Amino acid sequence: MKAIPLAADCAFTAEEQAAVYKCIFNRRDIRGQFLADPIPDDILARILRAAHHAPSVGFMQPWDFIIVRDGAVKGRIHAAFQAAHAEAAAMFDEAKREPYKSLKLQGILEAPIGICVTCDRARNGPVVVGRTHLREMDLYSAVCAVQNLWLAARAEGVGVGWVSILRREDLRAALHIPEAIDLIAYLCVGYVDHFPAKPELGSAGWLPRMALRDIVWFDRWRQRGGEEGLLSHLG
Amino acid sequence: MKAIPLAADCAFTAEEQAAVYKCIFNRRDIRGQFLADPIPDDILARILRAAHHAPSVGFMQPWDFIIVRDGAVKGRIHAAFQAAHAEAAAMFDEAKREPYKSLKLQGILEAPIGICVTCDRARNGPVVVGRTHLREMDLYSAVCAVQNLWLAARAEGVGVGWVSILRREDLRAALHIPEAIDLIAYLCVGYVDHFPAKPELGSAGWLPRMALRDIVWFDRWRQRGGEEGLLSHLG
Repeated sequence: MKAIPLAADCAFTAEEQAAVYKCIFNRRDIRGQFLADPIPDDILARILRAAHHAPSVGFMQPWDFIIVRDGAVKGRIHAAFQAAHAEAAAMFDEAKREPYKSLKLQGILEAPIGICVTCDRARNGPVVVGRTHLREMDLYSAVCAVQNLWLAARAEGVGVGWVSILRREDLRAALHIPEAIDLIAYLCVGYVDHFPAKPELGSAGWLPRMALRDIVWFDRWRQRGGEEGLLSHLG
Repeated sequence: MKAIPLAADCAFTAEEQAAVYKCIFNRRDIRGQFLADPIPDDILARILRAAHHAPSVGFMQPWDFIIVRDGAVKGRIHAAFQAAHAEAAAMFDEAKREPYKSLKLQGILEAPIGICVTCDRARNGPVVVGRTHLREMDLYSAVCAVQNLWLAARAEGVGVGWVSILRREDLRAALHIPEAIDLIAYLCVGYVDHFPAKPELGSAGWLPRMALRDIVWFDRWRQRGGEEGLLSHLG
C-alpha cells in the first residue's frame, strides 16, 4: 500500500467516504469464524499503526500492545475465560441462562494471535492536558485505539473479537502485567471464514438494534421539538 | 451517497483500504479551526448512524446523543470550561503553566453544534453479556461510538474536538442529565477552515509521537525476542 498523505486540505471523494462507512457498518465482533492462517507482519504492523493513531488525551498515547502468539499463554487465558463464563452464566435469570450458555463468545484458541491493549496512566507525568477533571480520559483514549485497530483490521479482512468475560486478575497474571498498568481489552485477531452480515447477538434474537431516532435529543436530556429535519434522516 | 451493503463476503479493495487509513491518520482533535456553517441534516444523520454502529458489550447500545445548538446552553458549557481550565492551569508546574495557558483547547462557542455522548448503564437490564466481570465495558462501548463518530465526521470533512476540561457536575447541569446516566464526551462538531496536518500538541512541542516499536511486546508485558519481522515494519 502506498503511503497515506497527511495534509491540511485532504478532502474525501464520495468513493472514499463510502469505504469508511463500509468499514464501520461491516465491522463485527468475531467469535466463531477464525481461521488459523497467520497475519503477515506488514499487515499486522498497519493495524497496530492505526491503533497508535487514535486520539489521546494530552497526546499522552497511554497504550501498549502485547501480541499473544504462545499457545500456552492462550491456554491460560482460555482457562480464565471458562472460569469467568461459568460464573457469568449463574448471574442470568433462568430463562436467559441456557440461551447465554449456547452463545459462542470467544475464539481465544482458534485465533492465530491475541492482542492485549493496556493503559499506562502514569505515562508522561502526573498532570495531563485534558485529564485534570475527567480522570478516566486516558482509559478512554486507549479504547479509541481499540476501535481504530478494529476498523483497520476489518479493512484488511482481519476479524477482531473483544473478550471481556475474564477476571481482571487472571488476565493480568497470564500476561505478567504489573498492577500499575490498566487492562483495557483482550482481542482475538485473525482472518475469518466470513464476516457475519449482522451482529450475532442481534441475529440470535438476544437484543434488537435500537432505532437511532429514539436516542437522539436536542439541547438537553430527552428534549425534542421541531427537529423533524434531522430525525427524518435517522430512519 | 448510495446505501452501504452489509455482506458476509465484502472484501475491501486497495483503494478502499487506503481510504480507511487516510481517515484514521488524518483525523484531528479540532479546537481552533471551526467555521459557523451548519452541518446539513443528512450528513449529521450519517455521522450519528456511524456512532450507533459502534461495537457494544452484549449489544446493549448504551449511548444517547444530545445535539447542542442553543447558544445559551453552549454559553453555560463554555463558562464551565473556563472555570475548569483555570483550575487545571494551577495544577501544572510553573514551567508548563504558561505554555498550557497558551494552548487553544476548545471551540465550544465557535462550533455550530456540540454533541454530548452519554452511557445508560441500566439499559436492557442489570445482567449484560460481557459486562459480568469487567464492569466498565458499557462505558467503553460508548467511547467506541465516539471514535466511530469522529472518523465518519472526518470522512465528511467535519471536524470534531473532544472537550474534557469540564467538571462533570457542570456539564450534567447544563444539559439536565440525570445522575443515573454517565457522561462520556462533549464534542464540538463543525466544518473547519483546515485540518491540521499533525496533532497540535505534537506540533506545539508539548509531547512527541512515541515510536510504535517501543510499545509493542510479545506474549507478556515488556517481553521481546526474535520478532524482528514485525518490529521492522513498525518503523
